[in-house]
Amino acid sequence: MIAPDPLKNVRIVLCRPGHPGNIGAAARAMKTMGLADLALVEPQRFPDPEAVTRASRATDILDAARVHPSLDAALEGVALSVAMTARPRDIAVGGASLREAALGSARVVPAQRVAFVFGNETFGLTTDEVNRCSMRATIPASPDYSSLNLAAAVQVVAYELRMAVLAPDSMADRPVLATHEELEKFYAHLDEVMLVTGFLNPDHPKKLAARVRRLFARARLEHEEVNILRGLLKACIEPRKR
Amino acid sequence: MIAPDPLKNVRIVLCRPGHPGNIGAAARAMKTMGLADLALVEPQRFPDPEAVTRASRATDILDAARVHPSLDAALEGVALSVAMTARPRDIAVGGASLREAALGSARVVPAQRVAFVFGNETFGLTTDEVNRCSMRATIPASPDYSSLNLAAAVQVVAYELRMAVLAPDSMADRPVLATHEELEKFYAHLDEVMLVTGFLNPDHPKKLAARVRRLFARARLEHEEVNILRGLLKACIEPRKR
Repeated sequence: MIAPDPLKNVRIVLCRPGHPGNIGAAARAMKTMGLADLALVEPQRFPDPEAVTRASRATDILDAARVHPSLDAALEGVALSVAMTARPRDIAVGGASLREAALGSARVVPAQRVAFVFGNETFGLTTDEVNRCSMRATIPASPDYSSLNLAAAVQVVAYELRMAVLAPDSMADRPVLATHEELEKFYAHLDEVMLVTGFLNPDHPKKLAARVRRLFARARLEHEEVNILRGLLKACIEPRKR
Repeated sequence: MIAPDPLKNVRIVLCRPGHPGNIGAAARAMKTMGLADLALVEPQRFPDPEAVTRASRATDILDAARVHPSLDAALEGVALSVAMTARPRDIAVGGASLREAALGSARVVPAQRVAFVFGNETFGLTTDEVNRCSMRATIPASPDYSSLNLAAAVQVVAYELRMAVLAPDSMADRPVLATHEELEKFYAHLDEVMLVTGFLNPDHPKKLAARVRRLFARARLEHEEVNILRGLLKACIEPRKR
């Protein structure tokens, strides 16, 4: 199915979740990243008021969640299924980092469904469940302590999927930057002030001036900021007003 | 401080957290990604048994957490501070995506401390707190619902930092950044020059001064650059040498 929003083609599957609070928190995590399709395989308690509480304002995702008797049923119609596992195991299914899996998924979701599959809080996925998926992926975690909370893992996965699908610098704000000419005039003005105030040694002005210029270049000055700075430079070399 | 493990140079700062459970869950999130330095600014309740429960096996991070009376105190010795904000606001502090901020941090942490600063669950960071940081960053989230749980946001940030730091080629250039205290002294010096030269209207000095401050914050000044700029400021208000 062609989705107008490819993130709507991502399904999160929770297998045998033990705590309804984690289901609610997972729904919230999904919604913050624009995901909506939640499937539950044999949840211990669902629906449950604790799920609703932890879902915050993502109860629409809980309401639409479907409960399935098996992983196979939850994966119906899915083109790519990714088993999330905490560590590499004695399993032959191809493994990847989460980032690789998300980038691969981004190529699929414009036209077909992808599922990310999570196991029980304590026991994870069974070997059989992992083997029913197209691939497995791991969230790189500390070898000393790799136990992410279930909803925290869903949050990280949903975040990587959003980043992979919406990639091209989606969030950048776009101030009006100064033009090359404006910057050159500002630098000339700055050089003048550095000389007039005696800050630069007129015999060897180059090195320090270049360094100051570089730090301003790094700031990527906006049009209005250049005007402000030039106003300050002007004030610095004018006869004192007080 | 040269850290054998650069992730140990990342500090997570929680400002006025309301729920001790979130502090514990944040500690767990940190530990799964190899982070260890937690600072709390005026927590509503801490220590608290609920924090311990939600920390799971990350109670060592809670035990080592320090409580501070102000954000400035929590940022002592920090070279790069990143204010996590939910959305672009009427603030000009340089904004970036989380990924950009994490990549920038990866260049700093081999030698100096970086802090990621989070606000209260309901109200976020104040404008003043955001302005005290070197830059702000946003977790790209759904415009329909961008409210990540506090610990979920810490999890995503810690994950991106781990990915950025452990990825190869992140160790490229490593300038020595100015510390928070050095920057505060530079800003005070700058304010003085702007007043003495008559650039600022002493009746309404705030807005313009804040704007100038922000453009310097965006440049992420190096230790030596601050010295150079202060030399220039000094020259600007000294009696003319010629």
